Amino acid sequence: MTPSHREATITARDVAERLGAELHGDGDRPIEGVGSLAHAGPHDLAFLADSKRARDAEGTKAGALLVPADAELSTDAVLLKVKNPRVAFAQAVAWFHPQVRPAAGVHPTAVVDPSATLGADVHVGPYVVVGARSKVGARAVLHPHVTVYEDVEVGAESVLHAQCVVREGTHLGARCVIQPGAVVGSDGFGYEITPEGTWMYVPQVGRALLGDDVDLGANACIDRGAIDDTVIGEGTKIDNLAQVAHNCTIGAHSMLCGQAGLAGSAHLGHHVVVGGQTGVAGHLTIGDGAQVAGSSGVMNDLEGGKQYGGAPAREFRVAAAIHVGIQRLPDIMKQLKTMEKRLQALEDGAA
Amino acid sequence: MTPSHREATITARDVAERLGAELHGDGDRPIEGVGSLAHAGPHDLAFLADSKRARDAEGTKAGALLVPADAELSTDAVLLKVKNPRVAFAQAVAWFHPQVRPAAGVHPTAVVDPSATLGADVHVGPYVVVGARSKVGARAVLHPHVTVYEDVEVGAESVLHAQCVVREGTHLGARCVIQPGAVVGSDGFGYEITPEGTWMYVPQVGRALLGDDVDLGANACIDRGAIDDTVIGEGTKIDNLAQVAHNCTIGAHSMLCGQAGLAGSAHLGHHVVVGGQTGVAGHLTIGDGAQVAGSSGVMNDLEGGKQYGGAPAREFRVAAAIHVGIQRLPDIMKQLKTMEKRLQALEDGAA
Amino acid sequence: MTPSHREATITARDVAERLGAELHGDGDRPIEGVGSLAHAGPHDLAFLADSKRARDAEGTKAGALLVPADAELSTDAVLLKVKNPRVAFAQAVAWFHPQVRPAAGVHPTAVVDPSATLGADVHVGPYVVVGARSKVGARAVLHPHVTVYEDVEVGAESVLHAQCVVREGTHLGARCVIQPGAVVGSDGFGYEITPEGTWMYVPQVGRALLGDDVDLGANACIDRGAIDDTVIGEGTKIDNLAQVAHNCTIGAHSMLCGQAGLAGSAHLGHHVVVGGQTGVAGHLTIGDGAQVAGSSGVMNDLEGGKQYGGAPAREFRVAAAIHVGIQRLPDIMKQLKTMEKRLQALEDGAA
Repeated sequence: MTPSHREATITARDVAERLGAELHGDGDRPIEGVGSLAHAGPHDLAFLADSKRARDAEGTKAGALLVPADAELSTDAVLLKVKNPRVAFAQAVAWFHPQVRPAAGVHPTAVVDPSATLGADVHVGPYVVVGARSKVGARAVLHPHVTVYEDVEVGAESVLHAQCVVREGTHLGARCVIQPGAVVGSDGFGYEITPEGTWMYVPQVGRALLGDDVDLGANACIDRGAIDDTVIGEGTKIDNLAQVAHNCTIGAHSMLCGQAGLAGSAHLGHHVVVGGQTGVAGHLTIGDGAQVAGSSGVMNDLEGGKQYGGAPAREFRVAAAIHVGIQRLPDIMKQLKTMEKRLQALEDGAA
Repeated sequence: MTPSHREATITARDVAERLGAELHGDGDRPIEGVGSLAHAGPHDLAFLADSKRARDAEGTKAGALLVPADAELSTDAVLLKVKNPRVAFAQAVAWFHPQVRPAAGVHPTAVVDPSATLGADVHVGPYVVVGARSKVGARAVLHPHVTVYEDVEVGAESVLHAQCVVREGTHLGARCVIQPGAVVGSDGFGYEITPEGTWMYVPQVGRALLGDDVDLGANACIDRGAIDDTVIGEGTKIDNLAQVAHNCTIGAHSMLCGQAGLAGSAHLGHHVVVGGQTGVAGHLTIGDGAQVAGSSGVMNDLEGGKQYGGAPAREFRVAAAIHVGIQRLPDIMKQLKTMEKRLQALEDGAA
Repeated sequence: MTPSHREATITARDVAERLGAELHGDGDRPIEGVGSLAHAGPHDLAFLADSKRARDAEGTKAGALLVPADAELSTDAVLLKVKNPRVAFAQAVAWFHPQVRPAAGVHPTAVVDPSATLGADVHVGPYVVVGARSKVGARAVLHPHVTVYEDVEVGAESVLHAQCVVREGTHLGARCVIQPGAVVGSDGFGYEITPEGTWMYVPQVGRALLGDDVDLGANACIDRGAIDDTVIGEGTKIDNLAQVAHNCTIGAHSMLCGQAGLAGSAHLGHHVVVGGQTGVAGHLTIGDGAQVAGSSGVMNDLEGGKQYGGAPAREFRVAAAIHVGIQRLPDIMKQLKTMEKRLQALEDGAA
């Protein structure tokens, strides 16, 4: 992983200075890239997140290691002590692998409606379609085959990957990153049963409004609102194949992991984390800072600031006790059988 | 939400007449749009579904309210009493927000095979591809980038949103609405293990046949049949990211909610409802009118006309009793410990 | 299902010879296609997988039946006895329905970067985009709207269906089949929380590497690695809407069924089977040949060669015992109440 974009040699000392790390070892060692503990080479920077797991770093061939301030380990690597090795390493990755924005310009095959407006220095790739009255902010990137319907706003510097679809009236904030195949603003699943037993479609006339710095995973789906809008707060991150139904609201800096799903009108606060494959029923509220483990099922309101798990999701301590109980069920049944016999014996004796 | 398409002022009386509602209050009040109880303004129509939740409507600023016949509530809103406020409101939404069909015509960039046939007044958007011998019915709408393979039939007035894919041989009925990114007719997951321990692909030669008025959600997947066809009955609605595997059959007017999944050869009757994220194992039958709660796992045949929940899914009453038991497990374990001691004491006393 | 590609009549004897089957009955009967037991006609070949289910084959109208060597059944069908009727039938389907590869050639609307290389006899459909320096192997098929980013390798004879997206740096082996809408190489869900409580994106600089004969289902998602690569071994099959997060590794000839999901850095051996909707937590290992039932949740390492189920997933025998316990919970609670009373009575008597 040799970055080609810089010419001067970077040393462990340079890295330490840049990341505000305390240097222990040979500051002149050249560092050319980043790597994992397992695969980093003698000119790579790797990291150890937790000093309790120092053992994981022994045997690494990394040339330099970002470690917590209290880490003690015997290694040939140059040690760079920092407060938060994860964040420092993320900064290093971004430094060694700067993201290259495609060149500004509109590909001749793009079909941009004359009433649409494109900001300065946008990149519009082959076969992109931009509908009437839509506005694409400055320096935004639309990869091949992106379809933007009418009356959409795409914020500045947002990146829309190939094949993603933004339906009419949707707003995306600035610096959003939408992975391939994601759909924003699809019609909500709104039907009423008629007296004849058929499903009557209720036109979905709300919008999908995404704040700044919202990221969506590949093939994730965000429905537009039925009457009110579906709203996703700034900085919230949503993983692959996750589903956000109509009229959901999610606060800022929350996170939905892979294949998680919110039913209609679920309301999540800010800094909420929903684990992978977890389902959230409709018309309920999850408070700020709540964290729900993966594979859970949220069926009631959850208070903020706590950790939850299980189905129905309960506070983690309770969920853990229930889990223990579930695992012990075969023993419980045996125990009951024995106690039954002992009771019978006592009753026979007492008779 | 002011609709721009009508010029004359619409009054509460007009709405009442149109929806067959009994008017209570100022019939001359102008109504310009629809809104939710929470956000409707003085010229909006909102609704209250259930008179027991009258409290929810107090404080609304809506100008008019669709309410059940027996509703009593103190409000400044004009009351419009109807039998089914949900259905009446859905009609009102459709009235105030008529869906605009894109203009008829075939975009010059569409690649339509010469042997394909397009019905009268179809809309074929930019970069649509229609394969050999496929037939698109009258007034159908193919949004940008839709790909229709060979020998497909798309029924009249169906709407296929951007990026959806219809594989060879698939039939879609009339008035189907397919959200962006949905895939119909993909190859089923059919493999046999060989003596060498490799997976041998079994060509999937059945088709996917969808009846009239079937709706598919964003990025939903309907596989073609292995040998027989995958069949989805008329009026059935399937939500985002749901999966229907090869050889499934679903009757009319059923519903699969978000991220629900049917394994191969699951057979669902008519008016079946499967909740969000619920999984249905293969080679089983769910009877007409059965309803399965979200986050459930169906592992056996289910009789029609009943409600189910849990994993494995059982009748709701049983599932609820089991749920209570699961929540009480920590207590059960404590109780067992105490009883054990009491038993021991009795046995010691009896000795 | 009359195949149009052959002219001479095929007889039951021809089928027997071709599949190495022992013929019982009229070898001259013409066989024109394949069918299921339920729908095969008098000129169709069907199969019975298991002689214990002979009953299923009674009443079939199939002209010929592939059956296990020990099958005994009263039927008018010609019997073709083989060791493995499933595999033999799969061969017959492939024979009667040979897959037609689209004609070689590059559609004039395809946008292929001048620095990309296309192998001999590739088929590149309308509106395909191939990025800089990417290499497409001989006889590969790129259906309409496929987007291949930069520096991708697509192996020979691979088939990429409409709308699928292959992100930069991805490698696909030979003979891979990618269903519509699948995404390979999307950015992993990698964020670190900053001291300010915002999510900092960690550039995902690993790749997604798929071996030969890997199949991906419709709208399935395979993320690229964070630092190291995401790796999927040869012959592994992944179903619709499944999710493989960054840095996962999967061995050869494994299988992920519909909507299954692997969190980051899950490591699966070879010949592992993960059932539909099953979730696998991150940073764990599933050994070679392990099989996990559908709707399970894997939260710990699993040893190879065994069968697992439940959430958290345990060995099948244990999971089954727990399931029994869960179903018996309402009874257990009643039993406890009764025992409580009996204990009380004994204690009262002893007092």
